[in-house]
Amino acid sequence: MRQRNKPWADDFLTENEHFIIPDPALNKGSWSKLFGNSNPIYVEIGTGKGQFIAGMAQKYPDVNFIGVELAKSVVVTAAQKIMENTHENVLLINEDAAELENIFAANEIAQIYLNFSDPWPKNRHEKRRLTFHAFLEKYRDVLREDGELIFKTDNRGLFEYSLVSFSNFGMTLKEVNLNLHAIDDPSNVMTEYEEKFSAKGQVIYRCRSVF
Amino acid sequence: MRQRNKPWADDFLTENEHFIIPDPALNKGSWSKLFGNSNPIYVEIGTGKGQFIAGMAQKYPDVNFIGVELAKSVVVTAAQKIMENTHENVLLINEDAAELENIFAANEIAQIYLNFSDPWPKNRHEKRRLTFHAFLEKYRDVLREDGELIFKTDNRGLFEYSLVSFSNFGMTLKEVNLNLHAIDDPSNVMTEYEEKFSAKGQVIYRCRSVF
Ligand SMILES: C[S@@+](CC[C@H](N)C(=O)[O-])C[C@H]1O[C@@H](n2cnc3c(N)ncnc32)[C@H](O)[C@@H]1O
Ligand SMILES: C[S@@+](CC[C@H](N)C(=O)[O-])C[C@H]1O[C@@H](n2cnc3c(N)ncnc32)[C@H](O)[C@@H]1O
Repeated sequence: MRQRNKPWADDFLTENEHFIIPDPALNKGSWSKLFGNSNPIYVEIGTGKGQFIAGMAQKYPDVNFIGVELAKSVVVTAAQKIMENTHENVLLINEDAAELENIFAANEIAQIYLNFSDPWPKNRHEKRRLTFHAFLEKYRDVLREDGELIFKTDNRGLFEYSLVSFSNFGMTLKEVNLNLHAIDDPSNVMTEYEEKFSAKGQVIYRCRSVF
Repeated sequence: MRQRNKPWADDFLTENEHFIIPDPALNKGSWSKLFGNSNPIYVEIGTGKGQFIAGMAQKYPDVNFIGVELAKSVVVTAAQKIMENTHENVLLINEDAAELENIFAANEIAQIYLNFSDPWPKNRHEKRRLTFHAFLEKYRDVLREDGELIFKTDNRGLFEYSLVSFSNFGMTLKEVNLNLHAIDDPSNVMTEYEEKFSAKGQVIYRCRSVF
């Protein structure tokens, strides 16, 4: 996602420190306290403009959601989107997913969502893919025993790569869907990219897997 | 594949017992002797009319191929197709894949091909799918250590099911291809169904996995 110049972004972040958590590692192991309840915590990585997490938070009020988004200008847009509605069960973090094991304790997370992650199609960029084994290690370390990794994308190459990567890491596939929109599934919450690419006629892939 | 009435099929089978092996269990553990060499043995299950195995046998003269086909009238058609060219490295078996572990010894097979297997889409027919775990057990029992199961299909539901089934069985995916014909791959040998369905614009899926 292109990083636009938003000079007011820093001010916005300072004003909304209760919502976009500035020093997330300080809450490692105590995110439930911050939410004020013991509901399960679902993390979305690469939250983008926040459409998915906003929709999920509305749909599942008994789940706590944390969005992790690297780009400052994007996390601000997500925050504004989420604030359009009630958002007691959403927090945002402006961080790199590579920091995940410093932000969350073992077993702290119930589900992790990867939505339309950057594909990094060149072989030499494999390490940057959010389904590269070094990232899978981090997800495993913070997910609880039965915790699922749920991955959606329109990118065929990334999906093919990821299925093999999950398998090599010893993960087990619970579900593979090679055309998510073939049947109208009212439980599916669309992301911005999902809407855009499926409107263009792209097939949407999804899989759910456990460690 | 529809079983057409072919009264001459029995005569044909009797005349070609050197090629369509009548009592295959008798050769368990000694198929290499029958081929007269120690080349690796690749098995195709559900050979159909034989286009794939005929093409593979031409392309890989240093591999021995065995086609297993349940339908008598179909195996006869495959035999005729294969006999159009040289076929020292092909044998056929008119048997149910369920008999596999009675026909082959442990480690006797280097690769198994499943091409456009019947999808059996109804849940109550799951056991009939050639990627159901009871079949995977048989494949594992006859494949050698590094032996691959290579599966092609146009059927989305069967492919989705199979990836999950392989994963649950503890198999490891080496490759997943979600649009085999997107790039012209000269190493790919097409089956009858593959030609037919890709001409209709269907996507062809392939995966390779090991036990
Ligand atoms: C292609 S966009 C998809 C956005 C959204 N999930 C959707 O489906 O519409 C990928 C997003 O992931 C973010 N991102 C990329 N790498 C990241 C990382 N290592 N950690 C956190 N976010 C990252 C990008 O800034 C971008 O907003
Ligand atoms: C849909 S056709 C595909 C034929 C060919 N492989 C192709 O791709 O064109 C499936 C074939 O598998 C055979 N078959 C089905 N179940 C089988 C079994 N249990 N053992 C052996 N062959 C079987 C059928 O008789 C049929 O010829």
